[in-house]
Amino acid sequence: MTDDGLRLIAAALAVGIGAVGPGVGIGVIFSGALQAMGRNPEAEGTLRTYMFLGFALVEALFIFALVIALLIAFRIV
Amino acid sequence: MTDDGLRLIAAALAVGIGAVGPGVGIGVIFSGALQAMGRNPEAEGTLRTYMFLGFALVEALFIFALVIALLIAFRIV
Amino acid sequence: MTDDGLRLIAAALAVGIGAVGPGVGIGVIFSGALQAMGRNPEAEGTLRTYMFLGFALVEALFIFALVIALLIAFRIV
Repeated sequence: MTDDGLRLIAAALAVGIGAVGPGVGIGVIFSGALQAMGRNPEAEGTLRTYMFLGFALVEALFIFALVIALLIAFRIV
Repeated sequence: MTDDGLRLIAAALAVGIGAVGPGVGIGVIFSGALQAMGRNPEAEGTLRTYMFLGFALVEALFIFALVIALLIAFRIV
Repeated sequence: MTDDGLRLIAAALAVGIGAVGPGVGIGVIFSGALQAMGRNPEAEGTLRTYMFLGFALVEALFIFALVIALLIAFRIV
């Protein structure tokens, strides 16, 4: 058990745990948008705008985790 | 306990934990789409579009975790 | 504590943690379908279609974790 093995564990934990929250969060955003569209289809344009805004902001969290995981996996840090 | 054993643990953690968030998130998206379709069946086309869009974006999170897991499992990183 | 023991732990973690998210997600999908069917029984056919589609897509996440677990357990990786 050397630091090289722990490096793999660290990369896996970063990308794995980092996907938990955004996976749930993006799902909740789309679910809310879908229900609002079903209730009021005329609002689709506005809902789409905010849906993508929310998606991008949640996705950003995962991108940070992914960047850290790649930095660790490819021995940059 | 060598790095080779830790490599297996790392691959398992990446794909295992990486499936938690998207598993819940995709479920929530389909649940929202189903409820919106039950309430307003005429909106099925629009809802289907956004449902698959949301599914693809959440699935992407899992794909990243799976790619990291395969990179680790097959000794690429 | 050798790599052979870690291999067992890794297979267990992959399939165990990998079942958490899809387990909740499939439950949420069926719950949403049931509520939509209770509200609007005429939509049962459409709802059933999307319910099984969602089930299959979430189940796929678990299948990936299961495949990784089997690859680990049977010493393929």
